[in-house]
Amino acid sequence: MQNPHITAAILIIGNEITTGRTQDVNANFLAKELDAMGIELTEIRMIPDDETAIIKCVNELRKHHTYLFTTGGIGPTHDDITSTCIAKAFGLELERNPEIEDIISNRRKGYTVVPATYRMADIPKGAELIGNPVTHIPGFRLENVYVMAGVPSIMRGMFESIRPHLKSSTPSVSVTIDSGLPESSLADGLAAIQNHHQAVQIGSYPYRIPEGWRVSVVMRAKDQGHLDMAAGEVEKMIVTLGGTPVRL
Amino acid sequence: MQNPHITAAILIIGNEITTGRTQDVNANFLAKELDAMGIELTEIRMIPDDETAIIKCVNELRKHHTYLFTTGGIGPTHDDITSTCIAKAFGLELERNPEIEDIISNRRKGYTVVPATYRMADIPKGAELIGNPVTHIPGFRLENVYVMAGVPSIMRGMFESIRPHLKSSTPSVSVTIDSGLPESSLADGLAAIQNHHQAVQIGSYPYRIPEGWRVSVVMRAKDQGHLDMAAGEVEKMIVTLGGTPVRL
Repeated sequence: MQNPHITAAILIIGNEITTGRTQDVNANFLAKELDAMGIELTEIRMIPDDETAIIKCVNELRKHHTYLFTTGGIGPTHDDITSTCIAKAFGLELERNPEIEDIISNRRKGYTVVPATYRMADIPKGAELIGNPVTHIPGFRLENVYVMAGVPSIMRGMFESIRPHLKSSTPSVSVTIDSGLPESSLADGLAAIQNHHQAVQIGSYPYRIPEGWRVSVVMRAKDQGHLDMAAGEVEKMIVTLGGTPVRL
Repeated sequence: MQNPHITAAILIIGNEITTGRTQDVNANFLAKELDAMGIELTEIRMIPDDETAIIKCVNELRKHHTYLFTTGGIGPTHDDITSTCIAKAFGLELERNPEIEDIISNRRKGYTVVPATYRMADIPKGAELIGNPVTHIPGFRLENVYVMAGVPSIMRGMFESIRPHLKSSTPSVSVTIDSGLPESSLADGLAAIQNHHQAVQIGSYPYRIPEGWRVSVVMRAKDQGHLDMAAGEVEKMIVTLGGTPVRL
C-alpha cells in the first residue's frame, strides 16, 4: 500500500481537564504532529480519572483507529490510575518492570526516590517501553495504544521516542487565504469551488477586526496541484467580490 | 431532589481542531463554568466536520448526560454542517426560522447580508433559540442539546444566554496546596488521606522549577468542612516531610 489510510484517536485523562483547572495543550500538539505525518486524527476525548470511563474509552478507541494515544495518569500518586485501567482494558495484570526499576534507582540527583516512586514501574505485562528524555521514567505501548504522561514537556519527549515507530502517509498540504471580506459574501462561491474540487477540503474561519467580521479560507489537499488550482479559483472569486486575497 | 446529580458532555466540532490548526479554548471555558454551577462534566469530544461522526456523537452523548453542549459548524458556509447533522440526529427536518430571518435582515450596519447568510436561519423544526449578544444570529436548543457557535467570543455570549435556564447543583469547593516537595515523597501520605476522606477528591499535579520537579495538591469537595479537615491533614503531612505548604 503506497498511501495507506492511517487514523488516530487521542484520549486525554484527568480531572484537572474536565473541571477546567487546566487548559489542555497536549491534544493540539499531537494533532499538529499527526497531521504532519499524514495520520488522520478522527477523535479526541477528554475524561476524568474514572476507572470505568477510562476502560470503556480505551476499548472503544483502540478498536476503531490505527493508533490510540493517551496522556495523563501515569505518575506515582493514588490518583494515577491509567496504567491499572489500561491493563484491565486488555485483560492483563500489572507487573513490576525491572528496566523501569533500574531507571528509577539510577536517576541523577535532584529526584527523590521513595517506595511510591516504584509505582511508576508497574505496567501491564508485555508492554513495550516508551523512552522519556525529560524525567527518564518511561511510558509504555500495548498493541496500538501509546500511554504517555500528562505533563506537556514530558509528553512531547515521549512522542519524540514514539514518532520513528509510527507508520506515516502523505501529509496534506494547505494554504490559508485571508479574504478581507465577511464570511457570508464568500459562501456561495466557496460552495461551488468545493463542489468542483472534491480532493480539496475548504474551510472558512471568521475572525473579528474593529470594522466587523472577516474570514480566512483554509484549503487542504493531499496533492499540491489540486490545491493550487482550487486556491487560484478562491483568489479569483475574492477579487471579483472586491476583496484583496492575501496568502498567509 | 435538593442536590441532584447533573452531568454534561461537550462536543467540539471542526476540522480546524482535529488538524491542529486551532487550539480549542471553548471546552476549558465551559468546563470552568459548569464546574462553578455544580454540573459534572464527564466527557469532552472533539471531532471533524464529518456528518457520520457528528450524528453518532450527538446521539451517544445526549442520551447519557443531562446536557450536551456543542460548538462549531453553524455559520453560513458549505463546511457548516452542524445544524443539518443535529436535525438528522433527532430525525427532524431543517426549517427556515422567521425570527432568525428577521434578525439577519435587521442587523446593524457592518454586516453583509447575502442569500447565503440566511443558511443560518435554517434550524431543526421545533428548536428553541439561544440568544447571541455578539453577532446576534442565535444558536438553538433541541431537548437537552445546546448548539453554539465555534468562535469563542460568540460561544461565550451564547452560554450567557443559556446559563439562567440550566439546572444547577452544589458546586465543589476546592483548595490548591503547593508542597514545595517532589511528588513521590507525598504519594503514600496522600493515598492514606484520600482513603480516609472519600468525600474529598485529591489530585496531585507536578510542575517544574530549576531545581527539579515539585507538586501541587488540589483538593475538591462538596462540603467545606470535609475539605478543611482533609486540607489540614495534607498541610500537616507536608510539614512532617520537611516542606512548607502554601495555599494558592
